[in-house]
Amino acid sequence: MQHEETAASCANEAVAALRAALGADIVSLPDEFGGRQFADWSGTPSTEPVALIRPRTTEEVATALRICHQFRQPVVTQGGMTGHAGGACVLGGEVALSVERMNGVVEIDPVSATLTVLAGTPLQVVQEAADHAGFMFALDLGARGSCTIGGNIATNAGGNRVIRYGMMRDQVLDVEAVLADGSVIGGQRKMIKNNTGYDLRNLLAGSEGTLAVITRAVLRLRAKPRAISTAWCGMPNYAAVTTLLGRAQERLPAGVSAFEVMWPSYCDFVRQRLPELRVPLASDHAFYVLLESCGADPERQSAAFEEFLADMLDAGVIADAAIAQSDADAAAFWAIRDAPAEYPRLIPGRISFDISFAVAQAGDAAQRCDERLRARWPQATILVYGHLGDGNLHVVVQEPGWTDDAIAEVKRVVYELTGEMGGSVSAEHGIGEEKLSVLGLSRSPAELAAMKAIKLALDPHNILNPGKVIAG
Amino acid sequence: MQHEETAASCANEAVAALRAALGADIVSLPDEFGGRQFADWSGTPSTEPVALIRPRTTEEVATALRICHQFRQPVVTQGGMTGHAGGACVLGGEVALSVERMNGVVEIDPVSATLTVLAGTPLQVVQEAADHAGFMFALDLGARGSCTIGGNIATNAGGNRVIRYGMMRDQVLDVEAVLADGSVIGGQRKMIKNNTGYDLRNLLAGSEGTLAVITRAVLRLRAKPRAISTAWCGMPNYAAVTTLLGRAQERLPAGVSAFEVMWPSYCDFVRQRLPELRVPLASDHAFYVLLESCGADPERQSAAFEEFLADMLDAGVIADAAIAQSDADAAAFWAIRDAPAEYPRLIPGRISFDISFAVAQAGDAAQRCDERLRARWPQATILVYGHLGDGNLHVVVQEPGWTDDAIAEVKRVVYELTGEMGGSVSAEHGIGEEKLSVLGLSRSPAELAAMKAIKLALDPHNILNPGKVIAG
Repeated sequence: MQHEETAASCANEAVAALRAALGADIVSLPDEFGGRQFADWSGTPSTEPVALIRPRTTEEVATALRICHQFRQPVVTQGGMTGHAGGACVLGGEVALSVERMNGVVEIDPVSATLTVLAGTPLQVVQEAADHAGFMFALDLGARGSCTIGGNIATNAGGNRVIRYGMMRDQVLDVEAVLADGSVIGGQRKMIKNNTGYDLRNLLAGSEGTLAVITRAVLRLRAKPRAISTAWCGMPNYAAVTTLLGRAQERLPAGVSAFEVMWPSYCDFVRQRLPELRVPLASDHAFYVLLESCGADPERQSAAFEEFLADMLDAGVIADAAIAQSDADAAAFWAIRDAPAEYPRLIPGRISFDISFAVAQAGDAAQRCDERLRARWPQATILVYGHLGDGNLHVVVQEPGWTDDAIAEVKRVVYELTGEMGGSVSAEHGIGEEKLSVLGLSRSPAELAAMKAIKLALDPHNILNPGKVIAG
Repeated sequence: MQHEETAASCANEAVAALRAALGADIVSLPDEFGGRQFADWSGTPSTEPVALIRPRTTEEVATALRICHQFRQPVVTQGGMTGHAGGACVLGGEVALSVERMNGVVEIDPVSATLTVLAGTPLQVVQEAADHAGFMFALDLGARGSCTIGGNIATNAGGNRVIRYGMMRDQVLDVEAVLADGSVIGGQRKMIKNNTGYDLRNLLAGSEGTLAVITRAVLRLRAKPRAISTAWCGMPNYAAVTTLLGRAQERLPAGVSAFEVMWPSYCDFVRQRLPELRVPLASDHAFYVLLESCGADPERQSAAFEEFLADMLDAGVIADAAIAQSDADAAAFWAIRDAPAEYPRLIPGRISFDISFAVAQAGDAAQRCDERLRARWPQATILVYGHLGDGNLHVVVQEPGWTDDAIAEVKRVVYELTGEMGGSVSAEHGIGEEKLSVLGLSRSPAELAAMKAIKLALDPHNILNPGKVIAG
């Protein structure tokens, strides 16, 4: 009780100093929050912060952190609040720093193919600005309208095009960020090659608000694809799936831009629960692959794509295939892969996993996972699908009426298997608060110690997003 | 004097402990070095180490570092000794740890498209193993026969194909490394997506032996190109050069795998000093571009490449062009770009710069650099060329009989200009010892402080490659 009072008065002192330095417009207090929500999409419990800071400039962020550093006041940075791991949730006692007012594209440099943007800008705004300038911004994910560039960098977001363009870190040339003590690094450089010491940009990408507040970034733009070829393939077995992946990378002139694999249970689920969607192939197959190739030359690409699929059919790699003849066809194929948007309605209370393995092991991992879960919960809904070109599996498990204990047990089964098989407990969603307890299944004690040493070096008072990524 | 004696005896105590723990086969003393050289390709003065450690296993590296950590004994890690920045030179008092015995490909996983390799393996061995397995390893540079994978990672090596495949860090899925205290991290993971906390792999890539000794890596393999299209283009002005780059990225079906730009002085130099090389176009142009596109579909790619160049000629973007009709033609084009291999013979005592800028600014930077140097040294040989698709310029300056003062002054002129224009003082060669004094032109005091904090967090006694990258 004594301790809580001390903490509260300390927080108040910090808040008072923040409000004095930055004003009431930037620093608001709980009675001024007006019903604002502070939770993200993960379902992680989130409380109210002791204050909300909404700076307009990097200098204001620096002032805020300097004061928080001085008063040992914890800070959680918030962007679009679309995270899946609770990284932006308020655990208790933090001030929330929202980058919502740092919103806008600063500059597009078409010759250097770069876009400079403030951290609070939604991903979709960046995509549209790039498109308007004749380029493509390569990151794409379902939350595009809400998620922010700062959050995309802080979580090193993934999405559908990683196989071709990489994760968010691969779209970033420089990051401007405010460190815990208020010092400002980076943010103006447009160079692709820059070997001048440690790569702070890649250290911040994926650090989930624990090392700095990202305020601005220089992003890399890509040539806009002028031709998109899409096919829906029925596959006889997992070996055929990986063979198709390898051959497609070797033979498709424009490479592979998406390689989405769905296990039969996933397609059965779509057929039964979303009958308005048309599953392209009538017959049943052991696996389904959505193959996409994005390139520059519509006619030649289309001919090469059809030739490739015909060869794969002849060779028995593919059992059956449908090639999209129109944008509407392609959209219909993607609608099946995008069915997870309907999960909240169709399978409430589901448990979702975002894990990854070596491509060679992902099929085995999925099978073992299914077997172990089935052995315990024969009636459960178990859906497996993913960006297999990157080794990334999404596993969704649900049984109506499950208790908290059962949920914990499902997680234990899946994460332990992931650890056993040398996989990653978080392929693209990050660690946040939610996966902190299983991080040790994918990272060794020496790695966790190194991460903690870096954290303490850059944030000695542990004010930045405590309780996330780094164990206390 | 007293201090030096203490240091010497301390070193001896460490060496004695190393020898006791690892044996004389692994730890050799100066009188056993047998004339071995300890300098790299940079020309940075290098002395003899107090001992040479040649471990065979990661465990032996760990034992060595544990002892060095305990005795505060500095360590310089050595690979192929082909660095350009003095990062592997012995400054005085260090033990040298050579990874030469940790040599070999451990595993190729063709389904996951990965290759696991020990750090001391030469790059060329990896390239050949990948090729033999039906893949390509994407990093390539002139020193391929001598440089090692560990050194490639430690320096984040660049080379000719960065525009398509990225730097060395983009070829690495996981790194096994021994930290200063002897703890071992990473080295087994084959996942492309893995968002489990801080990206230690990217932190080690480019850290030049100051954070860890790299012992093993999991590398990413790429599909082997089945068709290579190459052209030599004469360009009317710099705007046309950047226009060609943008259009090629947008329109070539297989994208751009090399975009090498040469300024006229460079081609004149080749014509005059290497008359055995055939410069493809007879007429003079403001710039020359070597354009390459690597893809999967020989016939269609070749047709599309020719069509693209014809369009660029029609549009006046290109003034004149020669398309390679054979491998011999392509080799002849590349021979001009590879003329720097003849520098030691043709322009001894030259000063070489490896700098980068935003693509939009690189032309202006080169011109200003030339003007400032010419104003002071009208007779100097000044050659400019580079991987312009990445903003990377190589500038070579020479005048016979220059004094040390003149050399220092030339460096000042070029690096100050680089700093003024927000460029990088080291695009691909790293900092080592040689560029430490100019690092502050490309990195802010806050960034240097953050780098130093990370260094001290992971290597509190500063035993790993002291005097390199991080100012003392």
